[in-house]
Amino acid sequence: MTDVRTDASAVVPEDITEETVTDATVASFAATPDTRLRDLLSAVVRGLHAAVREVEPTIAEWEAAVDFLTRTGQKCDDVRQEFVLLSDVLGVSALVENINHRKVAGATEATVLGPFHMTTSPARENGDSIDEVGGRETCVVTGRVLSVSGEPLTGATVDVWQADENGFYDVQQPDVQPPGNGRGLFTTDAEGRFWFTTVVPAHYPIPTDGPVGELLTATARHPFRPAHIHFIAEAAGHVPVTTHIFVAGSPYLDADAVFAVKRSLVRDFAPVDDPEEAARLGVANPFRRAVIDLVVQPT
Amino acid sequence: MTDVRTDASAVVPEDITEETVTDATVASFAATPDTRLRDLLSAVVRGLHAAVREVEPTIAEWEAAVDFLTRTGQKCDDVRQEFVLLSDVLGVSALVENINHRKVAGATEATVLGPFHMTTSPARENGDSIDEVGGRETCVVTGRVLSVSGEPLTGATVDVWQADENGFYDVQQPDVQPPGNGRGLFTTDAEGRFWFTTVVPAHYPIPTDGPVGELLTATARHPFRPAHIHFIAEAAGHVPVTTHIFVAGSPYLDADAVFAVKRSLVRDFAPVDDPEEAARLGVANPFRRAVIDLVVQPT
Repeated sequence: MTDVRTDASAVVPEDITEETVTDATVASFAATPDTRLRDLLSAVVRGLHAAVREVEPTIAEWEAAVDFLTRTGQKCDDVRQEFVLLSDVLGVSALVENINHRKVAGATEATVLGPFHMTTSPARENGDSIDEVGGRETCVVTGRVLSVSGEPLTGATVDVWQADENGFYDVQQPDVQPPGNGRGLFTTDAEGRFWFTTVVPAHYPIPTDGPVGELLTATARHPFRPAHIHFIAEAAGHVPVTTHIFVAGSPYLDADAVFAVKRSLVRDFAPVDDPEEAARLGVANPFRRAVIDLVVQPT
Repeated sequence: MTDVRTDASAVVPEDITEETVTDATVASFAATPDTRLRDLLSAVVRGLHAAVREVEPTIAEWEAAVDFLTRTGQKCDDVRQEFVLLSDVLGVSALVENINHRKVAGATEATVLGPFHMTTSPARENGDSIDEVGGRETCVVTGRVLSVSGEPLTGATVDVWQADENGFYDVQQPDVQPPGNGRGLFTTDAEGRFWFTTVVPAHYPIPTDGPVGELLTATARHPFRPAHIHFIAEAAGHVPVTTHIFVAGSPYLDADAVFAVKRSLVRDFAPVDDPEEAARLGVANPFRRAVIDLVVQPT
């Protein structure tokens, strides 16, 4: 029996081709009730298809991409977010933060969330230490949450998380650091102030034991981030800000693996040798000190 | 103590901004030893960044995208490939297949692999049935593997997989279908022929119990594919072809959820009422019959 093509023209008016598949896919979203979702998906499809048209991947390359994305998802757990890390090293997180910051001009510059904000920070009182291990060198961090008009904001929350002096977050070292080490959720006082003691964080490599690490190795990119402390400031009636302060003098300030350094966020963690001030702050002399005001814009 | 910006200009010559982050990311791949990988990643970054610039996602939308991709990876297991399904419904798989088919003009048209080719098909002899359950209506599928010159190819492998008469693959119904039901790995004879008996597959919905199902629901898209049988033909010295044959008259031939229908691949699964032919083929009369020649191009 011979292979004869069926006359399918009655039910399949025309094939979807290389030329028409992008429009056909975008058209498939036409009835999406949420028009914002429709626009988001349409843009993603156009962007993906443009990349495919540019590089013309082989089937094996497409399969490798599927495998990479699958393993990226499967690397995620309660304390690890490999897709955030992928977004970070591909510059997507920095771009999204920069675009959103436009809408709150005058506020403290935002930068990436990073992959380690997966656990809830323990609520702490101003003046508490977030260093539960006992680091080599005590650092006092003080600051205020302010509205862009300069008004101090009382009762704002300041979520803080950071790596330790060796460059590791608590969740990376469950045998060494207790959960919540290097983290704290503070509330500003009547003058908008928050303050805590900690250690000066070290620069560190982002986790390289997953698919993102493979990508960095394959592209001859280093995995390092300059030393920093993360902050999210939230005040009623204001747009929250997600940011860092960077430690002046840290290696990799000019080559952050995730494209997140802003010069406005670099701070001296200055050595202080002042027994009276140390006593007033309740820390041993000498110590280090950093100051950051977190400025937010009204909604 | 006042918050004073550090003079960071010595070590951070300029911030990476919304305007420069795409070029900075692409530049980060400059030292990639595999220049093909460099080009692939650069195109993906440009495509992703273009989509982000077009739609300007909020932080919440970016977080939703990260969550969606994470759950897509985590839905995958030994018998389920949710990222292939995502690639399929976004038209990416069809585009990649179409682009690659250009290079093998004259060969049988290719179409998508689909997410159910996760298990190895059992090796079977020509004439065997791949229906281990006992369907309502027997179908005989016959065909040849040919080179584009018309030469029959002996010893080619033909990997076959299909849904049953109710529209389910074996891996979707482990309690009902034995592993390997609807699957077979055949080898062509001295005249390039392969043949097997089966059931006529039904049209079916792609799996909707994962993130891709959420996407279809949110975009008011139906999940159905027209009835089809999958094939991968591989012959020494030739480019393999991954394709389907579609059942003429099946619903959704004009609205495949994964954009994969080609008119050249639609076949009559014609009813045959011929006791002699039935006896020769070793099947009950009447039966259904479909024919497909799989034409491959020399490498």
